[in-house]
Amino acid sequence: MDIRGEMLIGGRAVPGPEQGFEGYDAATGAVLAPRFGGAGKDEVEEACALAHEAFPTYRATSPEARAKFLETVAEKIAALGDALTDRACAETGLPRPRIEGERGRTVGQLRLFAAELRDGGWQEARIDPAMPDRAPLPRPDLRLRNVPLGPVAVFGASNFPLAFSVAGGDTASALAAGCPVVVKGHPAHPGTSEMVGRAIQAAVAECDLPEGVFSLLFGVGDWLGGALVRDARIKAVGFTGSRAGGLALAAIAAARREPIPVYAEMSSINPVILLPGALAANGAALGKAFIGSLTMGAGQFCTNPGLLLASPGAGLDAFVGAAGGAIQEAAAGVMLHKGILAAYEKGVSHLEQTPGVEPLGAGKTAEGRAGAVFFGTDAKTFTKTPHLSEEVFGSAGLLVKYSDFDGLLSLLDSLEGQLTITVHMTDEDKSLLSELLPVLEEKAGRILINGWPTGVEVAHAMVHGGPFPATSDSRTTSVGTLAIRRFLRPVCYQNVPEGLLPDALRDSNPQGLWRRIDGKMVAPK
Amino acid sequence: MDIRGEMLIGGRAVPGPEQGFEGYDAATGAVLAPRFGGAGKDEVEEACALAHEAFPTYRATSPEARAKFLETVAEKIAALGDALTDRACAETGLPRPRIEGERGRTVGQLRLFAAELRDGGWQEARIDPAMPDRAPLPRPDLRLRNVPLGPVAVFGASNFPLAFSVAGGDTASALAAGCPVVVKGHPAHPGTSEMVGRAIQAAVAECDLPEGVFSLLFGVGDWLGGALVRDARIKAVGFTGSRAGGLALAAIAAARREPIPVYAEMSSINPVILLPGALAANGAALGKAFIGSLTMGAGQFCTNPGLLLASPGAGLDAFVGAAGGAIQEAAAGVMLHKGILAAYEKGVSHLEQTPGVEPLGAGKTAEGRAGAVFFGTDAKTFTKTPHLSEEVFGSAGLLVKYSDFDGLLSLLDSLEGQLTITVHMTDEDKSLLSELLPVLEEKAGRILINGWPTGVEVAHAMVHGGPFPATSDSRTTSVGTLAIRRFLRPVCYQNVPEGLLPDALRDSNPQGLWRRIDGKMVAPK
Repeated sequence: MDIRGEMLIGGRAVPGPEQGFEGYDAATGAVLAPRFGGAGKDEVEEACALAHEAFPTYRATSPEARAKFLETVAEKIAALGDALTDRACAETGLPRPRIEGERGRTVGQLRLFAAELRDGGWQEARIDPAMPDRAPLPRPDLRLRNVPLGPVAVFGASNFPLAFSVAGGDTASALAAGCPVVVKGHPAHPGTSEMVGRAIQAAVAECDLPEGVFSLLFGVGDWLGGALVRDARIKAVGFTGSRAGGLALAAIAAARREPIPVYAEMSSINPVILLPGALAANGAALGKAFIGSLTMGAGQFCTNPGLLLASPGAGLDAFVGAAGGAIQEAAAGVMLHKGILAAYEKGVSHLEQTPGVEPLGAGKTAEGRAGAVFFGTDAKTFTKTPHLSEEVFGSAGLLVKYSDFDGLLSLLDSLEGQLTITVHMTDEDKSLLSELLPVLEEKAGRILINGWPTGVEVAHAMVHGGPFPATSDSRTTSVGTLAIRRFLRPVCYQNVPEGLLPDALRDSNPQGLWRRIDGKMVAPK
Repeated sequence: MDIRGEMLIGGRAVPGPEQGFEGYDAATGAVLAPRFGGAGKDEVEEACALAHEAFPTYRATSPEARAKFLETVAEKIAALGDALTDRACAETGLPRPRIEGERGRTVGQLRLFAAELRDGGWQEARIDPAMPDRAPLPRPDLRLRNVPLGPVAVFGASNFPLAFSVAGGDTASALAAGCPVVVKGHPAHPGTSEMVGRAIQAAVAECDLPEGVFSLLFGVGDWLGGALVRDARIKAVGFTGSRAGGLALAAIAAARREPIPVYAEMSSINPVILLPGALAANGAALGKAFIGSLTMGAGQFCTNPGLLLASPGAGLDAFVGAAGGAIQEAAAGVMLHKGILAAYEKGVSHLEQTPGVEPLGAGKTAEGRAGAVFFGTDAKTFTKTPHLSEEVFGSAGLLVKYSDFDGLLSLLDSLEGQLTITVHMTDEDKSLLSELLPVLEEKAGRILINGWPTGVEVAHAMVHGGPFPATSDSRTTSVGTLAIRRFLRPVCYQNVPEGLLPDALRDSNPQGLWRRIDGKMVAPK
């Protein structure tokens, strides 16, 4: 597939008339052809108008039709083969196995949403049959199902050029819900974005769906994103990126005449708690494993473990020693783009200059690449220095030694909301964990025991979310099948005749759904 | 039970130190003793601190314990007997059968949430078992359940002194979810509020729950509400009231350092569509029934039918004639308080003075009471006059004659989001309804056929919600068991040992829950 530097508006491919830009080879800095142009008002208008126009037809498609569409998108992405992985590796500097894994995940999650569509649980069908003889008043026939919100604006993320980008989780879940999608592709991987976008565009045509189901726009700077979120035809927003970016979009959405939900996944330092038993038993092994998680993909994961809260007892020296040794072996990493590298270097320099923060180890360095860093500090310095609990995106870890269990609770209390919190423990830490769990539940969307937070399984029981500022809406997840709910709302049908009811709510249950009837779960017959 | 003019802060009853006020007899204007005082900073601080302090204990109670607590609240409200209904009738001017019905509904919805707690479906338990041998990477054990958000601020509504007030739907659903509640009682029914508040306070003590699970504050003016929503310990807001009030609270919540969800049910004119077959067959009967719904409770329902969209054909004259006749018999209504009466009179006067709007009938009038009004206009006037689609809270109805089906679609397109849309139809209108339904789904939370929107069943399949500005969050409902979800968020547990998992997620399934295991719904054994 040729990359032509074009945006995709419905069925057309058009060059952008506004400020142009190119993709770069993240490792070498070389310009990657072709040149892309940015969207202007006309392109936003066209994409939103087409999405709005497509919505009535698309929302009325059957779950089976949307499942086949998602599977067609998955096939077409898989069929892009090496051309896609070559371009994604070049544009992001991420290693080939990581990109291949990410492609598998992207294709897999499209297929998982297809399966979810067929299962139908997301419709949450409920039926309270009429009680015509109830006194003092009869009960009407009431039936509930979920319907899609409308066109969704999705922002491609820089750090997952496939899984959180043009055909990533936000797009897959919005399309599954029955919502057309307008993607703002991330300018750090425009070629990858165009290739994936063309795969979706081709799937739209092949499945005979209205062209406005999908558009892909580009733009550098803030204008395009703001224009999309302000457009009255857009009814929800999916975003993965910086805290500043997410908050800006949320403010725009809240200021609209009709405010809309913004699902922004923003900022998390993913604390890892090292309980005494775990440290005493496995200090050195944990130290080594920590560096493995910290430096994976140059630390450019939303779930990168940026903070360690460590018991002061036996094994801590072994942990620090092993981590300090392992990090020395860590190669300097290619970061996604220059802006991210500059922000990382600034963050590291800020840590270096913070009184009370001491270096515990550092990885290899190289011109234009990011060296991993590992610092330590005490609880008092940590709690009185707000920037120490802010995310430094990349391979920067900070170990805070806590005094005792109450000290650990105080440290946790001082933290903002997180995507994940990890605990390393052994059997002898069980009573501590039992006290900790309710606290962790209040602070994070996912709690992991004896693992590392990097690597987010796409599954039914996954939550990739969490209290603010991990996300702008803790009631949801952006990974896993529950993500579809972000783009749905319930509607009640009162005394609607059987023949006019949506399939999900007919007595005959043609979709074979599990339904709550009079409050009781009932299996399909 | 004595009414002492006191606020309830945890286990204490305290007089408010700030601006005082009294309840009034809505019908006579007579002052109702005693005098109440408003909350100041100290009282807000105490109530929020107690709620925050109570949260860890309360959230850890079993669903069964919370079910018993809600049932105890229900019993204690029922036991208030005539004293409660007398006071509520006096403070609101609502007729005794209506208040008795509302008490039944309030008690009933507390018991329904108790049943929902025992059912456990609200926990949405999901389990994806580990796949240790999966290639290329093993799958960890993943389990998901919902946890409560934290302390909730609830605003009592003036128009439902029991069902949407101190122990109303917002309080019941938040308490069911495991969230402590701080209520701002509506100053139009302070005595009713205190009585119900004392019932909850007594139930908290009887059930050995931490006192901070419930507090009741009073205040006139905007300060108290703003102070509650600004408090960092409050994690969600439930509100039923005016559009201006709801938007102000939403703006405060969005501007917090940690934004929180606001569930504001605000404004709806509840369109009623009269299709040709229905009008031709039943024009006169529908006209009479419409006035019955319009004037019920002096029109002070969120779901009052304020707008009729009528086919121009046969039967319309009969409808208008019958409605015009029936409204003449409608007694002037006591409104909830002087402010609401003044707003109603202003709204009616605005309608009277609008060019192109003609009077079609009016009810009886009386000094200090509200007479029902029924106006008519054409589609062109309606669409070019924005205030005609704004809610006039009370018994004010506007009939808009549409030209043809496309004209009806244009009218619907011009409307904002609604709580309800009702359609009157016969078999010969079926094909029209089939075209209409998807449009109605986009505009409203509930679609009714051949009924009237007043009267909201508390059930599993109810949606009392809808697109903005009907509510600030169309993804939820404030009536029915699904309302509990407003106060919950999902948490994922990765590789947490069986013995430490929450009951809902243990392999042994001690709560006997329906769960999604590997994506499939599985019955409890």
